[in-house]
Amino acid sequence: MLFKVEMTVNIPSSLPAAQVDEIKAKEKAYSQQLQREGKWPHIWRVVGQYANVSIFDVADNQELHDILTALPLYPWMEITVQPLCVHPSSIYVEQK
Amino acid sequence: MLFKVEMTVNIPSSLPAAQVDEIKAKEKAYSQQLQREGKWPHIWRVVGQYANVSIFDVADNQELHDILTALPLYPWMEITVQPLCVHPSSIYVEQK
Amino acid sequence: MLFKVEMTVNIPSSLPAAQVDEIKAKEKAYSQQLQREGKWPHIWRVVGQYANVSIFDVADNQELHDILTALPLYPWMEITVQPLCVHPSSIYVEQK
Amino acid sequence: MLFKVEMTVNIPSSLPAAQVDEIKAKEKAYSQQLQREGKWPHIWRVVGQYANVSIFDVADNQELHDILTALPLYPWMEITVQPLCVHPSSIYVEQK
Amino acid sequence: MLFKVEMTVNIPSSLPAAQVDEIKAKEKAYSQQLQREGKWPHIWRVVGQYANVSIFDVADNQELHDILTALPLYPWMEITVQPLCVHPSSIYVEQK
Amino acid sequence: MLFKVEMTVNIPSSLPAAQVDEIKAKEKAYSQQLQREGKWPHIWRVVGQYANVSIFDVADNQELHDILTALPLYPWMEITVQPLCVHPSSIYVEQK
Amino acid sequence: MLFKVEMTVNIPSSLPAAQVDEIKAKEKAYSQQLQREGKWPHIWRVVGQYANVSIFDVADNQELHDILTALPLYPWMEITVQPLCVHPSSIYVEQK
Amino acid sequence: MLFKVEMTVNIPSSLPAAQVDEIKAKEKAYSQQLQREGKWPHIWRVVGQYANVSIFDVADNQELHDILTALPLYPWMEITVQPLCVHPSSIYVEQK
Amino acid sequence: MLFKVEMTVNIPSSLPAAQVDEIKAKEKAYSQQLQREGKWPHIWRVVGQYANVSIFDVADNQELHDILTALPLYPWMEITVQPLCVHPSSIYVEQK
Amino acid sequence: MLFKVEMTVNIPSSLPAAQVDEIKAKEKAYSQQLQREGKWPHIWRVVGQYANVSIFDVADNQELHDILTALPLYPWMEITVQPLCVHPSSIYVEQK
Repeated sequence: MLFKVEMTVNIPSSLPAAQVDEIKAKEKAYSQQLQREGKWPHIWRVVGQYANVSIFDVADNQELHDILTALPLYPWMEITVQPLCVHPSSIYVEQK
Repeated sequence: MLFKVEMTVNIPSSLPAAQVDEIKAKEKAYSQQLQREGKWPHIWRVVGQYANVSIFDVADNQELHDILTALPLYPWMEITVQPLCVHPSSIYVEQK
Repeated sequence: MLFKVEMTVNIPSSLPAAQVDEIKAKEKAYSQQLQREGKWPHIWRVVGQYANVSIFDVADNQELHDILTALPLYPWMEITVQPLCVHPSSIYVEQK
Repeated sequence: MLFKVEMTVNIPSSLPAAQVDEIKAKEKAYSQQLQREGKWPHIWRVVGQYANVSIFDVADNQELHDILTALPLYPWMEITVQPLCVHPSSIYVEQK
Repeated sequence: MLFKVEMTVNIPSSLPAAQVDEIKAKEKAYSQQLQREGKWPHIWRVVGQYANVSIFDVADNQELHDILTALPLYPWMEITVQPLCVHPSSIYVEQK
Repeated sequence: MLFKVEMTVNIPSSLPAAQVDEIKAKEKAYSQQLQREGKWPHIWRVVGQYANVSIFDVADNQELHDILTALPLYPWMEITVQPLCVHPSSIYVEQK
Repeated sequence: MLFKVEMTVNIPSSLPAAQVDEIKAKEKAYSQQLQREGKWPHIWRVVGQYANVSIFDVADNQELHDILTALPLYPWMEITVQPLCVHPSSIYVEQK
Repeated sequence: MLFKVEMTVNIPSSLPAAQVDEIKAKEKAYSQQLQREGKWPHIWRVVGQYANVSIFDVADNQELHDILTALPLYPWMEITVQPLCVHPSSIYVEQK
Repeated sequence: MLFKVEMTVNIPSSLPAAQVDEIKAKEKAYSQQLQREGKWPHIWRVVGQYANVSIFDVADNQELHDILTALPLYPWMEITVQPLCVHPSSIYVEQK
Repeated sequence: MLFKVEMTVNIPSSLPAAQVDEIKAKEKAYSQQLQREGKWPHIWRVVGQYANVSIFDVADNQELHDILTALPLYPWMEITVQPLCVHPSSIYVEQK
């Protein structure tokens, strides 16, 4: 089941640089693990923003919520979620 | 070069049903041709809306504008365009 | 899988009254059928509005989209969809 | 009498973790007590957000205000309230 | 139980003047009847607008909905509803 | 001359509790004095909010400004002001 | 008593040109009469818009409402009203 | 050349009172100097707000920018600028 | 003196195609005349929109207003105007 | 390829003045280097704001993102990006 998720990151300047680096490293590893598992099939950077546009492919709403709230950067993110489905003009089979 | 494009369709009820059907058939053929050419690599339906979330892969801004304004449904669409680029955490090679 | 759906109805005054009555009767029958099937477990009227707040319980995003776009009043509705999941403080077992 | 209430929580990072845990524990107990009393018949988590959608069933506006402002997390919440009533298509008898 | 209700009227120019006059006369009579019954204790005109700010005093949400949707001008109104209760600094006894 | 004034209070958590209590006590006394003088004929609490809806009856704009900016809670308030006048359907004589 | 009033005009293309010219001529005469009486001491055109920024100097809210709703272009205007008073840094005596 | 400028002031409570007083005194002197020079022909207080509505009469955009950014309160202001010109119904000669 | 002007065009489908073509031809000629005179030094198309971003270089506000309201497409445009001046980091001499 | 970019700067008062001066000096040098290279062909100051309107001419989305996120003031900026292309009425050859 597919969802478009848009995430914008706002890390306060009061957070120590070393801690920020550690969180970002964890975020990257966590994201790439989910990409390899096929649950996070697309992630793009928005030009000029510390933000991304992502597509998630999960079993249900609960799994998506659990994945998003476990993001290491979650406490500093604004997140919007939009449920998607097959477009009748699509020639792709990625969506089931 | 990648862009997220969101399209919402509002066809006025005054348009004759036969004409609407014809426009939609043209729209579908036009969209699928662009999908086959690799210029419209993703299109999803937004749940509960006559709207889609799409990713376009084009040579430049001008090509994207020409493609969008040639959509048979263009006169009845609201369109937003957001330029994308590679996300540093992405494991995919689709973006170049 | 649960979703909150909010629907606002705007029927243009140009639609003949007899046709409006027929559409509303179909809408009511369609809604009650889905309520009996357990797919539309809650529907409330918003005070002072021709609008409702509803909860849907469906198999996936696609089923929700198919149900909503088949609403007899769909062409005259504005619809927003928000995916829900279990709240950790909830004592209820309705959500699975 | 039914109300839809939406709550979004924003706890500042300056609040000590032990204090946050204590407030959340009180919030959970308080919420579950109201659920058991039938005054808070529904609570759902919004996917990807530290937020909930709730339905309250109270005697009047005053009781709702007193319940909401006594929430242990109230000082860190944004709250919206929308009065509901019976939908003419509803087959349920929960609303009186 | 008290509610603040704000109504803005937009009558399309296509409605015949005689019909508009008739609707407005019915609206006035209906409003004054509710004022006399004590259910609509305040109504003020917003300066420069075809709009009003009103206070309603009703038994419950359902009664308010029934009153508002029976307004002769209801089909041409935008309505917002906000539940009110006693302010702790109030010296008045009008709210119960 | 009548005005609707809506006030929302946001007291920062950094303000000491004793100081907050003192300010609130002054606010209550100040508000009740104006109510007794007939300048603040209505004040209601908004359900679920630290906010009020008020009606002021003052000689002119300047008096309203002087009253509002002298509120002990003024530095922590967001205030909106809307001028009102007699509604042609009103049966009341409170507005002059 | 001073008010800033902003008016934006939207005349539908369905209104016959002769009727539009007549309304505009009446509007101009009406406006200039009020300017001569000192009730409309300032009127400026907003660059690039069919809109104006005006200052009114009236006895009270009711007089302002009566003036605005009698504007020949009133049925096609969006109007916002903001009460003003003396600025403590002002060296002018125009405001009383 | 005329511009409407609206300024809203937000001084953080962390600024020492003596410094605030000094800045406000400088602001007043600076504003009155510009009023005397005819560059700031109108300034009004917005009722209930720490804000003003002003009219500036300057040689060009650059002069307006230089005046505004030199305001002693500029670092704590939100400013909006709207270019104005002669209204065809105006009987005044102040605008040239 | 420089201004950024953004124009969005909405031509109703009820306008006959021949008339639309004629208006567009006049618009193009008018725009190019102003470009040749140096008053409209930049015009760009917004990707995916029937809209443009333009820079105007005019003597004063009045000249800009006269130019914009004389656009053949003016009755079907939404226009926003923003005054610009020299940026202190600019190496260009185009702005005077 | 052309983009309109709008940047608004918000430097917190807690940043030491010497550090601010250093960042601004770096920003100016960086901006002027890009202007000389032809990648930042226009930059204007917005009147009354610590903000600019800029035009960038870059090879692709990725280059624009890399340029913007390397701005010394980037951490304190809000940035919006809008892709542009040739306007059919343009007489200029700057856009390719």
